[in-house]
Amino acid sequence: MAPVDDHSTSTRARGLDAADPLASHRDRFVGAESDLVYFDGNSLGRPLRASARSLADFVEGEWGGRLIRGWDESWFDLPLTVGDDLGRVVLGAASGQVTVGDSTTVLLYKAMRAAVTARPGRTEIVLDRDNFPTDRYVAAGIAQECGLTLRWIDVDTATGATVEQVAEAVGEQTALVVLSHVAYRSAWLADGPAITAAVHDAGALVLWDLSHSGGSVPVELDAWGADLAVGCTYKYLNGGPGAPAFVYVAQRHLEAFTQPIQGWFGATDPFLMGPTYTPAAGIRRFQSGTPPVLAMVPLRDMLAVLEEVGIDAVRDKSIGLTAFAIELADELLAPLGAEVTTPRDPARRGGHVTVRHPAMEAVTARLWERDVIPDYRDPGGLRIGLSPLSTSYAEVAAGVEAVRDELSSI
Amino acid sequence: MAPVDDHSTSTRARGLDAADPLASHRDRFVGAESDLVYFDGNSLGRPLRASARSLADFVEGEWGGRLIRGWDESWFDLPLTVGDDLGRVVLGAASGQVTVGDSTTVLLYKAMRAAVTARPGRTEIVLDRDNFPTDRYVAAGIAQECGLTLRWIDVDTATGATVEQVAEAVGEQTALVVLSHVAYRSAWLADGPAITAAVHDAGALVLWDLSHSGGSVPVELDAWGADLAVGCTYKYLNGGPGAPAFVYVAQRHLEAFTQPIQGWFGATDPFLMGPTYTPAAGIRRFQSGTPPVLAMVPLRDMLAVLEEVGIDAVRDKSIGLTAFAIELADELLAPLGAEVTTPRDPARRGGHVTVRHPAMEAVTARLWERDVIPDYRDPGGLRIGLSPLSTSYAEVAAGVEAVRDELSSI
Repeated sequence: MAPVDDHSTSTRARGLDAADPLASHRDRFVGAESDLVYFDGNSLGRPLRASARSLADFVEGEWGGRLIRGWDESWFDLPLTVGDDLGRVVLGAASGQVTVGDSTTVLLYKAMRAAVTARPGRTEIVLDRDNFPTDRYVAAGIAQECGLTLRWIDVDTATGATVEQVAEAVGEQTALVVLSHVAYRSAWLADGPAITAAVHDAGALVLWDLSHSGGSVPVELDAWGADLAVGCTYKYLNGGPGAPAFVYVAQRHLEAFTQPIQGWFGATDPFLMGPTYTPAAGIRRFQSGTPPVLAMVPLRDMLAVLEEVGIDAVRDKSIGLTAFAIELADELLAPLGAEVTTPRDPARRGGHVTVRHPAMEAVTARLWERDVIPDYRDPGGLRIGLSPLSTSYAEVAAGVEAVRDELSSI
Repeated sequence: MAPVDDHSTSTRARGLDAADPLASHRDRFVGAESDLVYFDGNSLGRPLRASARSLADFVEGEWGGRLIRGWDESWFDLPLTVGDDLGRVVLGAASGQVTVGDSTTVLLYKAMRAAVTARPGRTEIVLDRDNFPTDRYVAAGIAQECGLTLRWIDVDTATGATVEQVAEAVGEQTALVVLSHVAYRSAWLADGPAITAAVHDAGALVLWDLSHSGGSVPVELDAWGADLAVGCTYKYLNGGPGAPAFVYVAQRHLEAFTQPIQGWFGATDPFLMGPTYTPAAGIRRFQSGTPPVLAMVPLRDMLAVLEEVGIDAVRDKSIGLTAFAIELADELLAPLGAEVTTPRDPARRGGHVTVRHPAMEAVTARLWERDVIPDYRDPGGLRIGLSPLSTSYAEVAAGVEAVRDELSSI
């Protein structure tokens, strides 16, 4: 294969940036002006510049000015109003089904416990072997405490479960199926509606982990007929390190589903402080403690930007960025023995691109030293995370060229 | 009783402020310059002015500048280092026993589940009837899921459990005793060391809820021999609305105690992402999901201030403020039929003062309209919360005079 001219690569990148209708949004993020190449917005999104001001304003205004009155004035409902915004802008969920708070792990625990309790007599939770660790760990803990069994769908680190695999794994013994919408290693994009239907055919419930899709891949929970979903907000939703997570429970289940962490904010009337816990009507019953009001501020900023831009436009750019990354990986990295393990079909691909080579762990360490920041996941996977609004095509070109340089010199 | 001269009241307040060695710290808080009287720092502490800048700096520097590298550089250990700071400055706990994250309610759930699992065969959890609602609700949920019984210590709304009551309630059937160190209604301050000893005499474990004491009343968890503790950081620790909570587990239990929400951050090596969950060594096993790094920023600011001032000096001022509030309530409110239900003995009193009168709910609503902000708790209790570093004696005088005005005109 003839060596590829870097000049040609950067010319193509410039052309793509010039044609990108969303290009101007990149300047809204902290660090856009620097030469750093950030390929890890799929782990921690860049902050919006506006969020520094929003947080300072929150301290001086809402918190410092309104003090305890803030709870009556807006904070009490905030997990639900931000949840509704998430539902409308990102999740395809009508209002009243999403609440924000806790970590993804804690919400996975609540949602899985709710689901297995709602399917008494059924003995299995189904997951795929490459599901995200915390999903697997939570499921294992619940299986042990509730006397259930885990049934594993075999997938390798380049794919997720197919509809056929799910249909084969579920049956009248299945209480719950837990799957990631986008696989964290490979960016495999699961078939949400078809898998949901297959799970329902067996009378089981499905819980979607949207951590790696929410904010970059359109999700249509209501249209899929999904039962439950959770996701984090610090990746493509730019909520900041350790930002609160969200949980969705379909309206039709809200009367029957309960979760085990019975706290005052999930009770009918938190400030009545009555003698016994009665779960609140609606999705608020999935809350437990005092909601993280301050910690929701950056997420609110990002949801406003996503609503302005529209998730379909974000997805278009995401596909454009990942396609360009794959094209460059084929040109620059394949000749060095690296292989793209992310699906080439955009309909099966999320927002990042994984390139595999035995030397990638060492390559990642070297790249960090020169301010090119991908991350690394076993086995041999360098992840090129492409947060659509904060990443330019020029950044993709510069980053993949840097990977080539380090890979060829190692 | 002769009418009290407001001039005399404010003269006394001025004298107390002039003699207060901590008076200057009040200006470090947002809103110190306003005429608003804030009697609710026991529900939500005022922000430090520094926290607006710290949060903006965090967005632009640590988050926006270091991006994902922040996890390797400092965030990963942050729940433990901030936990150690809390232990040293506020809780009387040696390092390695405290971690920060989740809500108080979620940590109550984890800590109670850990405790009852560690006392198999014992069938009861003991609480007092006036314990904070979320503590009671969590315990009720756990009792139900684990097949346990709740045993209630009868206290009225002006007291908490005494050593004698606890000693009488516990026995070989007791797995766990859950008590608030300071009662949320009355500010009754429980006898930490004596009650801990009485619980241990029965072979049971004790879990202290420090939400209403941490940051205003010295706590000596290690010296008491406490087993577990939890508390919130948005009251006297000024962490902001919905700030993350903390959990303490005594070193001697850390090898044996496990908690049920098995997540990646509580596993031996979170980034190994291995097939099965093995709880981390030490207190990190009480973590579950990604820790709330951004949301810990204001707490870190306040811990630095508390370390500078020292908790004993804070407590001295707290006793001074509550004593003055009681003195004024006796002078100005008792003649109108109101009664102080907070213990008069400072050794049994936390950081707020509750004054009871049947009209107090209406009085509270009127006070809010004139920027005097106490809160109200049934039955008939107006709570005068006196956050030591952000409250002046003049504020106490102005506020109690306002209560008198509204109570006499209703």
